[in-house]
Amino acid sequence: MDRRSFNLRLLAGSAAAATGVTSLSAASASGAGAAAGAAAAAPKTAPAGGRVRHLKLYAEKLADGQLGYGLEKGKATIPGPMIELIEGDTLHIEFENTMDVPVSLHAHGVDYDIANDGTKLSRSHVEPGGSRTYTWRTHTPGKRADGTWREGSAGYWHYHDHVVGTDHGTGGLRKGLYGPVVVRRKGDILPDKQFAIVFNDMVINNKPGGQSPNFQATVGDRVEIVMITHGEFYHTFHMHGHRWADNRTGLLDGAGDVSRIIDNKITGPADSFGFQIIAGEHCGAGAWMYHCHVQSHSDMGMAGLFLVAKPDGTIPGYEPHHPAEAEAAAGEHDH
Amino acid sequence: MDRRSFNLRLLAGSAAAATGVTSLSAASASGAGAAAGAAAAAPKTAPAGGRVRHLKLYAEKLADGQLGYGLEKGKATIPGPMIELIEGDTLHIEFENTMDVPVSLHAHGVDYDIANDGTKLSRSHVEPGGSRTYTWRTHTPGKRADGTWREGSAGYWHYHDHVVGTDHGTGGLRKGLYGPVVVRRKGDILPDKQFAIVFNDMVINNKPGGQSPNFQATVGDRVEIVMITHGEFYHTFHMHGHRWADNRTGLLDGAGDVSRIIDNKITGPADSFGFQIIAGEHCGAGAWMYHCHVQSHSDMGMAGLFLVAKPDGTIPGYEPHHPAEAEAAAGEHDH
Amino acid sequence: MDRRSFNLRLLAGSAAAATGVTSLSAASASGAGAAAGAAAAAPKTAPAGGRVRHLKLYAEKLADGQLGYGLEKGKATIPGPMIELIEGDTLHIEFENTMDVPVSLHAHGVDYDIANDGTKLSRSHVEPGGSRTYTWRTHTPGKRADGTWREGSAGYWHYHDHVVGTDHGTGGLRKGLYGPVVVRRKGDILPDKQFAIVFNDMVINNKPGGQSPNFQATVGDRVEIVMITHGEFYHTFHMHGHRWADNRTGLLDGAGDVSRIIDNKITGPADSFGFQIIAGEHCGAGAWMYHCHVQSHSDMGMAGLFLVAKPDGTIPGYEPHHPAEAEAAAGEHDH
Repeated sequence: MDRRSFNLRLLAGSAAAATGVTSLSAASASGAGAAAGAAAAAPKTAPAGGRVRHLKLYAEKLADGQLGYGLEKGKATIPGPMIELIEGDTLHIEFENTMDVPVSLHAHGVDYDIANDGTKLSRSHVEPGGSRTYTWRTHTPGKRADGTWREGSAGYWHYHDHVVGTDHGTGGLRKGLYGPVVVRRKGDILPDKQFAIVFNDMVINNKPGGQSPNFQATVGDRVEIVMITHGEFYHTFHMHGHRWADNRTGLLDGAGDVSRIIDNKITGPADSFGFQIIAGEHCGAGAWMYHCHVQSHSDMGMAGLFLVAKPDGTIPGYEPHHPAEAEAAAGEHDH
Repeated sequence: MDRRSFNLRLLAGSAAAATGVTSLSAASASGAGAAAGAAAAAPKTAPAGGRVRHLKLYAEKLADGQLGYGLEKGKATIPGPMIELIEGDTLHIEFENTMDVPVSLHAHGVDYDIANDGTKLSRSHVEPGGSRTYTWRTHTPGKRADGTWREGSAGYWHYHDHVVGTDHGTGGLRKGLYGPVVVRRKGDILPDKQFAIVFNDMVINNKPGGQSPNFQATVGDRVEIVMITHGEFYHTFHMHGHRWADNRTGLLDGAGDVSRIIDNKITGPADSFGFQIIAGEHCGAGAWMYHCHVQSHSDMGMAGLFLVAKPDGTIPGYEPHHPAEAEAAAGEHDH
Repeated sequence: MDRRSFNLRLLAGSAAAATGVTSLSAASASGAGAAAGAAAAAPKTAPAGGRVRHLKLYAEKLADGQLGYGLEKGKATIPGPMIELIEGDTLHIEFENTMDVPVSLHAHGVDYDIANDGTKLSRSHVEPGGSRTYTWRTHTPGKRADGTWREGSAGYWHYHDHVVGTDHGTGGLRKGLYGPVVVRRKGDILPDKQFAIVFNDMVINNKPGGQSPNFQATVGDRVEIVMITHGEFYHTFHMHGHRWADNRTGLLDGAGDVSRIIDNKITGPADSFGFQIIAGEHCGAGAWMYHCHVQSHSDMGMAGLFLVAKPDGTIPGYEPHHPAEAEAAAGEHDH
């Protein structure tokens, strides 16, 4: 596994400062997350939204022939960068197509008008070498003028191409043109670490079978998983040792929340959900498998590891195949 | 697309009066729905149920060899007529088989005894040329004698044949013998317009690929979608621009409702769900795609348009293939 | 159908006393369930958990070449024994592999550390002829030290092999190495009868098509269904005449519970859910089909009967193929 298998988190902290990218992290306004393992302090929560943000995004051909979205030229990743918003935020994405085929950016969950739909039908794609701005808006929940309840934008969403290969972006999706979007509600709990897992056809994050990405955290970290499915097949996403709630946040709202607690969920193309777990809670440190539970899919390699280390950095019973692997998996996504 | 691709809504208003059909609309007791776009007035809600209703239903062979259910002889449609009830209502369906093979009417969600199951096993099907009455009942939620909570009948349900081709009605379903049922709870919000979308094997509402039905509304209309799956395959139902709640009504109950907001949902045969959206809310007018998000399915034609017009009737960036198309799509389903 | 198609319920009452097995039933602490049909008395509910329990479990090769888990040597069943816990309970399972291939016990939903994961990766499987103890813990919901809400263990879960055939247990699962787990919350309503239905590849409870298991109850019985999927395919589980809530318990919490009421649900491998129905409520006695609603699956035999008898034992319109069938289906699972 290499670093490209991780989503690129946009932070207000050192990493973001170093690259100069505008922060899209919900945490940026409220200060960085709690130290790993320090679970006794109340976790940070999302502040109110309402900001207008700007982002540069490139669609690129990667060295291995796959396609990706990236925040800087030559640095596209699969999945593309994690984009985080808070209800009320507006995001203007200056989008550049560096490839030799038309491409687009179609979003799930956020608000966009027909000129920002990212389809050929609405002529909102981008020709080779071209640029345009896509605008996504979000909104808070509240009452409509007619007294009925209007839902907010919060959710675990995603974006993808809708043009490459077919009018539904089948070629673009297959080659890697997809990424996660998280829209938070004011007061939503912020994670310490965050990972995107995309079941795309028969691979995870477009890594070939046997090279599925591993993810690492320390016992007590509040870890957020954004799970997206793309392509042709249905899958069931399963994690060993950990569970989540099958609702908007993946967290129970309290004793009255009747949502099912699950550790396995059927998903199909363009479905997305997210949740937060406390790494190792009720199960301790270890190399915990996550995998598709369709038997032929896991047997063919749709399985990776959620590596939960002790505070001293050791993982009981686990020896990484390459010494640098565990280190590469750590850091980088700390809030 | 032609008019047969629409569900036939049973109205108490002018359309129903013209045809003389008994009304099955929840709206009939509370007056017709709000004018399109007039969102400031509180929407109409379902009155209390408890009525005993009667309906005539025919199973017929259509001119093109497909099969359908209809309220009048020679006027069967695919999907069959929308049947709306309010919890507490009883419906007697005088059912006539005009075909040359046995057929039945099996319902999901409503109450029926074994003599009304609509299966060969229970001898509740109808021979060629025969007739019988199927009785469906519904009930309100409440407490049982033992103090436990008994759910009500409200839901987005459906009916279908269980006999043609195989003992599970595989042939009847494939050829079009299915239709939507909506059971409302007193106080449920009534829509301005209503559409049924059925993913049946690899087609929508039994229209061949490339001729998938379009649906039209005006910005501000409260539009209800009843989504049903049949046949062999799993699908993911996706709408561009619009979202809904993954709960009983498809509408959030308020700030405390933790249901996931979604714009994409995995479904399998005989699954059904429904929701209401405000046409163009947060996205404006336009030709919005809806489609199965399984890539090969959308590429093979499982995609149609939700046409959201401005109050002046125009749809930005959309030119219908046939001038009459947009008009044909409008009207007919106004509450 | 024969008795092996039923799950083996562990009771504190006469059946358990006869075999001498330690009871794992939640009902054991609060007295056996209500008499069948006596719905006017408040149903029994689960007491508080917190006990430490012990169980012996064998993995065995059955006479027909299939594999099963059993509580006694030579008495393995498919599905394996129903294991019931209450939040707070700890279960030590003394596990013996009587087969000639390595095997394991991997659980969903309960708490286990990496040494009890039941995978080859964590070296927590059992060699041929070997034994070991697997420990499962459960916990009540409550607040964490940081003030956030921690979900409880309650749910309809399951266990299975993760080793036979492949590192994901594909061979073990196919041949029958799976079983149900129910973790209840204090106050959860206890059923009168309980059945496990497992859609495993193209069969139900590993019975060949056409021999799918039937289940019997009497009108008014509170019947609990634990539905599990395994193998390769997606399915939709449908019951005729009866419905349930799509939430943790399968029962609505009251008037404010917005969960969808359903009678059909898409599921994939390792998904599990459960619910309680009052046999014959709103539909009466009869031979009610339950089946996969994927048309080719039901046509190939993924269908069985939920036999709901009148208090006098008769089932309207139903003649069992073998006179003893209806009797064999009754009893045995009474709480």
